[in-house]
Order: sequence, then C-alpha cells, then structure tokens
Amino acid sequence: MSPVPDARLEALLLRTEIDAFNTEYVAKLDRQDLTGWVDCFAENAFYTVISRENFERNHPVGLIYCEGRAMIADRAFALLKTAMFGPRYLRHMLSNLSVVPEADGTVRARANFIVFEVLMDWPEPRVLLVGEYRDVFAREGGTLKLKERRCVYDNLLIPTALCIPI
Amino acid sequence: MSPVPDARLEALLLRTEIDAFNTEYVAKLDRQDLTGWVDCFAENAFYTVISRENFERNHPVGLIYCEGRAMIADRAFALLKTAMFGPRYLRHMLSNLSVVPEADGTVRARANFIVFEVLMDWPEPRVLLVGEYRDVFAREGGTLKLKERRCVYDNLLIPTALCIPI
Amino acid sequence: MSPVPDARLEALLLRTEIDAFNTEYVAKLDRQDLTGWVDCFAENAFYTVISRENFERNHPVGLIYCEGRAMIADRAFALLKTAMFGPRYLRHMLSNLSVVPEADGTVRARANFIVFEVLMDWPEPRVLLVGEYRDVFAREGGTLKLKERRCVYDNLLIPTALCIPI
Repeated sequence: MSPVPDARLEALLLRTEIDAFNTEYVAKLDRQDLTGWVDCFAENAFYTVISRENFERNHPVGLIYCEGRAMIADRAFALLKTAMFGPRYLRHMLSNLSVVPEADGTVRARANFIVFEVLMDWPEPRVLLVGEYRDVFAREGGTLKLKERRCVYDNLLIPTALCIPI
Repeated sequence: MSPVPDARLEALLLRTEIDAFNTEYVAKLDRQDLTGWVDCFAENAFYTVISRENFERNHPVGLIYCEGRAMIADRAFALLKTAMFGPRYLRHMLSNLSVVPEADGTVRARANFIVFEVLMDWPEPRVLLVGEYRDVFAREGGTLKLKERRCVYDNLLIPTALCIPI
Repeated sequence: MSPVPDARLEALLLRTEIDAFNTEYVAKLDRQDLTGWVDCFAENAFYTVISRENFERNHPVGLIYCEGRAMIADRAFALLKTAMFGPRYLRHMLSNLSVVPEADGTVRARANFIVFEVLMDWPEPRVLLVGEYRDVFAREGGTLKLKERRCVYDNLLIPTALCIPI
C-alpha cells in the first residue's frame, strides 16, 4: 500500500465539510427554516447581500447588512412577518466551490449560487439572483460557523422586492 | 504521518460514488439512452415525478408513477414512440448533493436538479424544470441501484407536455 | 484501522484536482483575466467552441477554433479590443464532472456548464449558453494543463454575438 497523501486528503475533507455546510445552509432557506439558518452564523458574524457593482468598487452599501447573529436573527424574523415572504418556492443551486485554509485557523471559501423562484403568479421557475458567496468560516466549540458571508449578486436589477436572505 | 480519518473517508468515498451515479444517470437521459437509464433502477424500484406542492401535502399524485423496473421500462419505451420525444436537446445540471447511509445498508440521498431544454422552435436554452431528487439507493449484486427516486419539481406550471423521464 | 482504499482515493484526489482547475478556469473568465485563462492551456492545446448539432454530426465548424496556445492568446486579446467585450458580467456554473484517467497519463474529463450574463440593457441574469466541456488534460512540468477543450453548447441560437471564450 502506497502512503496516504495526508495534506491533500485533509484539504479534501475540509472542502467536503464546507460543501456539506453550504448544502445544508441553502436547504434551510429553501424550506424557510430561518431559525436553523440563523444558527449557521457565529456570534459576531458579518452578513451582507450586495451587488457585484458595489462590491467591486468597495462601496459597502448592500440590500441587507448585518453585524452579529442577533441582528441577523432580527432581520430574518422581521421578514417572516412581511406579506411577501410566504407564497413562493425557492431553490438554491450551488457550484464552483473553492476553499483556502488560513494560518489563523479560519477558512476562506467561495461558491457560486443561482436562486430560482416560483410564484403563484409566475408559475415557471425563473432566475431571481445569480452570484457568489465570499466567506470566512471559523469554528465555535468545534462546530463550523460563518464568520463572514458576503452574498455578491450579478444582477443590475432584481425582479421582485428582495425580502429574503440568500 | 497522522492517522487516516477512516469514517470521514468512507463517507466521502460513498458520496463520490453517488455523485458519479447521478452524473451518469442524467448523461443517459441527455443522450436519450433509455435502456441505460432503466438499468439504473433496482428490480423493485419506485420512481415518481411529482410536484413539490403535492409532495409536501403528501398527495401521491404525480406526472409519472412507476412501481418496478418493468413498469419503468414500459413507460420509457412508450415515450420513445411519441412524436414529442425526438427533436430537442436536454441538459441536466445537478448540485447540492447530500448522502446519508442507513443502518440497513441502504443510502438516503438528495440532489437538486435543473433541466434545460432547447427546441427547434425555441432555440435558446430554457429552464424546463427545477427541483430535487429524493432517493434511496441499494446494492444489487454489489452494484449501486436506485431503489426509490422521487423527482420533486418546484414548477407550478410546466412549459411543454412533459413526456420525458427526469 | 481498516486499510485505506488507495485506488479509489487516488481517483478522488485526481477528480478534486480537475474540479479545482475548472473552478479556477471559469473564475478567470468571469473576472476577465484572459492572460490567466490562456495559461490554462498546454503549448500545443486544441480549443474549440462548437454547437452540439455540429459536434454530434462530426462537423468541425465552430464559433471559435484554435490550435496552439499562441493562437488561443491571439484570439483572446483580439477580443479584448472589441467594443462588445467590456460592459457585462459573466458567471459560469459548473456541474456533472466526470474524470477518466488514460493509460498514457492524460486524463479525459467532462463537465456541464451554464454561462449567465448580465448586460446594462438586460439587467436581469439570462442564460447565454448551456453545454458541456469535453476535455483532455495533460501535465506540463508537473502542472495540469488543458491539452484539448471542446466547449459543446446546446443552443440552436445564441442571444448576442458571442465574442468571448467559454
């Protein structure tokens, strides 16, 4: 038996863990489990939904901007009470994951996303958003959490009032 | 050399096997190899194509509903004889795979899908269906087969008569 | 500790390497780093962008047809000088990767792609192309390079003048 390539294997197992995290993260959004979604973030997490145009020009203005899990939770449950939230199906498709471990124990990662929605009055799936997660992960008591998530979307126009986390 | 994390590695290899299975499954559909497609199923397999609306309400009514590989084959080859089947290109995109081995040796899995189609009279790709496979895999003589596949689509409306397996 | 399944593991590590290569390849295109893109190819690489219709009939006529890295570079930088290239966002989504190592040390691979674009005058993302990479990889001084890439797109019609590599 040839020796196991440990470093490549460790990198692959970390990548797999991030991939599983992201899959579960968007599954929570797609089934509207916002309590579970909030739990994906670290205590002091930063979360924003921002246009590629603003992101690339270093303009911090975003559709959503939250500092800390408490603010993320406030935002999520405010959304649940709006009339717009309910009658739609969402489906996130992820791809193009890349993962870079940092010396300080955090992990930088990226993934592309498409968000499809189906509405009662738009009954075929349409593309709501296309873009990229730009993330920093950290461990909180052994568990992987989002320390930073920037949802950078390519759209210059968003078809409906975006009142959902991404 | 640090010890190889065996359980995580076994999980990863199983995940890779399911991923390869799904990639081959949809490649068969995209090149209209329906004989190969039927062969993906176990002898007593259950296969259905059902709306998310009906699935979430536990209404079993689906567009396609097959019990057993013989019924799946009948359905596939009946479709080949319909006029609608031929002149189109299909392309399945998969993502968001999750895999959970069960104590009885079967494997539960999920994956999201987009099905694109190109028609002679609709020459740009459009989204035919968006949804999720909800699966149970089992081994038949060592080979991985689908024991159950539920194709749950988000569409409230399907643009053309859906006369194809998914 | 049970023995490590070496062959499956080596296959998985190779697959991961190809996946990372493809992710980086399209990231370069999406940020318009054409110098980096050209560097993905081997010295004597073959690169073509061709319709599924022509590909399946063995008609070699494609939108883009390049033999050798010099010709690929010429093509890329000619494109940069055209008026069409600038004001758009591109986003490649990859999936359905399959990888087959060959006896001669090269690697055959496939992956599906969607290319989304956002234009100033079409501000919601739309699907520009859907298709498949059909590739041969080789190592040049230890580094993985594309020896052949055929970008086979399903579209019968392309919405805008395609003046970009895929």
